[in-house]
Amino acid sequence: MICDELIKQIIEKKSPIVVGLDPRLESMPKALLEAAFEQCGETLEGAAECILNFNKGIIDAVADLVPAVKPQIAFYEQYGIPGLTAYSETCKYAREKGLIVIADIKRGDIGTTSKAYSLAHLGKVKVGKNTYEPFSADYATVNPYLGDDCHKEFMDEVKSHNKGLFILVKTSNPTSGQLQDIETGEGKVYEHVARMVKNWGEQIIGESGYSPVGAVVGATYPKELETLRKAMPRAIFLVPGYGAQGGKAEDIVGAFNEDGLGAIVNNSRGILYAFEGTGMGYQEAAREQTLNMKEAINQALVNSGKKYW
Amino acid sequence: MICDELIKQIIEKKSPIVVGLDPRLESMPKALLEAAFEQCGETLEGAAECILNFNKGIIDAVADLVPAVKPQIAFYEQYGIPGLTAYSETCKYAREKGLIVIADIKRGDIGTTSKAYSLAHLGKVKVGKNTYEPFSADYATVNPYLGDDCHKEFMDEVKSHNKGLFILVKTSNPTSGQLQDIETGEGKVYEHVARMVKNWGEQIIGESGYSPVGAVVGATYPKELETLRKAMPRAIFLVPGYGAQGGKAEDIVGAFNEDGLGAIVNNSRGILYAFEGTGMGYQEAAREQTLNMKEAINQALVNSGKKYW
Repeated sequence: MICDELIKQIIEKKSPIVVGLDPRLESMPKALLEAAFEQCGETLEGAAECILNFNKGIIDAVADLVPAVKPQIAFYEQYGIPGLTAYSETCKYAREKGLIVIADIKRGDIGTTSKAYSLAHLGKVKVGKNTYEPFSADYATVNPYLGDDCHKEFMDEVKSHNKGLFILVKTSNPTSGQLQDIETGEGKVYEHVARMVKNWGEQIIGESGYSPVGAVVGATYPKELETLRKAMPRAIFLVPGYGAQGGKAEDIVGAFNEDGLGAIVNNSRGILYAFEGTGMGYQEAAREQTLNMKEAINQALVNSGKKYW
Repeated sequence: MICDELIKQIIEKKSPIVVGLDPRLESMPKALLEAAFEQCGETLEGAAECILNFNKGIIDAVADLVPAVKPQIAFYEQYGIPGLTAYSETCKYAREKGLIVIADIKRGDIGTTSKAYSLAHLGKVKVGKNTYEPFSADYATVNPYLGDDCHKEFMDEVKSHNKGLFILVKTSNPTSGQLQDIETGEGKVYEHVARMVKNWGEQIIGESGYSPVGAVVGATYPKELETLRKAMPRAIFLVPGYGAQGGKAEDIVGAFNEDGLGAIVNNSRGILYAFEGTGMGYQEAAREQTLNMKEAINQALVNSGKKYW
């Protein structure tokens, strides 16, 4: 199961880190951008060329240090068809390098529509006698606002194609509480979602003891991380919000179980653009920042008494 | 403002109908599918070719009868890059024919990411000295689970590029109530979202008295339609769930204000695949079904005493 593969890589690489591939054209290394514009002009194709080359460089720099990457599809979608082609190529390249790819797509819709999203990102579509893998990821993030009709469709690919989900429970952004924190008679709204995650997750548990149905819980809400950790013991947490959004190593300790496992922490800007203002190459800087983050998380887990490796 | 243009077209065409462009390969007219496979093979490109030709045929058949079309992007995403190219071309073609295009994308994310989605579907992106419109729609559907951080970013395009939003309030699917109907002490969860829609919507009102910030409320929940109509008097309702999902003309009367305006009702399968088993051509059948639906809604509004045209 994909959750076992993720846990295995976390242990082997001693690193519960996901590098978020959120390409921002305005932050690209100048030489890379100029070369892409030279080749393709100042066009969507030029933007996509730069992004893909940058991503390959990042993947090469961190592939031995982290178990997974998480391309955020919005940053590709904004460059239209060429951008989405770069997204697709990025997913392929990362998987070729042995990395687990988490498609940060936050899709979610009524049943038949969710099915189409699930096939698009985790499954295969039939065209006549042939089958194709349109976008090829290992995990997808899913928005729960439409309820289990949506999750049910994604579960087909989880079960039959060895894929995984991270369902949004408590997101990292400042206004996440507006809906997610509303008190109901049975806990906050996000606790209702946590129960959904638990219910789906318990249907399928890997050898590692974890489920391929995980949860997104933001690093920026440390207290909620602890509560939710107890509510979903077998869910792997995808923890965004570390670094640029304000989450620190000590904030995310609550995302881990006592065995030091059960969470992967995302860092996008803090790693991708670590070179800015340093004079270092972007690959070297990304590598250094990844190692720093690994060390910081390791230390925070040791300090908290949670077993680590 | 786009809401005024929508209301104008609804009045001119005497039709509060949106045709949902949800292409399903298994339901395509045989001749169209065979021609596309002949040309491109049984490939993603072949699927996309068939879809685009089908959509153009539907658009040609209904452009004088309805104000808007709503392509559901999942059905294109499942055919990868060729599918999304067909999506993009469909949006362009529909706008050339004078139709308002509602991108049913249900995106929603943290601030900077929502910005990227907003630019992708409603705005323009800069690449060097040039600007591009990656996917070009008039309205987008937005998922509120992440709160106002998300809506705020989309509002930039609403205000500066004359675009509109339909925020998911109460969706049409069977399990929509799981989260949306939870009681909170201050109404159900969807009523909290309705207040968000009202707050954003009142910042910008068109000459028609309506706002470009609308709400998605399903035809399958007639009681909720009435309650929500009162809660968001200036929001245009996008009403899915008519036809194949079970919503009938009398169910959606509550979505309209006393002036017979304020809602547009979506029908996808019921119009697109009306030809099935009839021996009619798909264009002719789609046109007939659209006229039937127009008549049914008109009659239901007359019966309810709501002014109509």
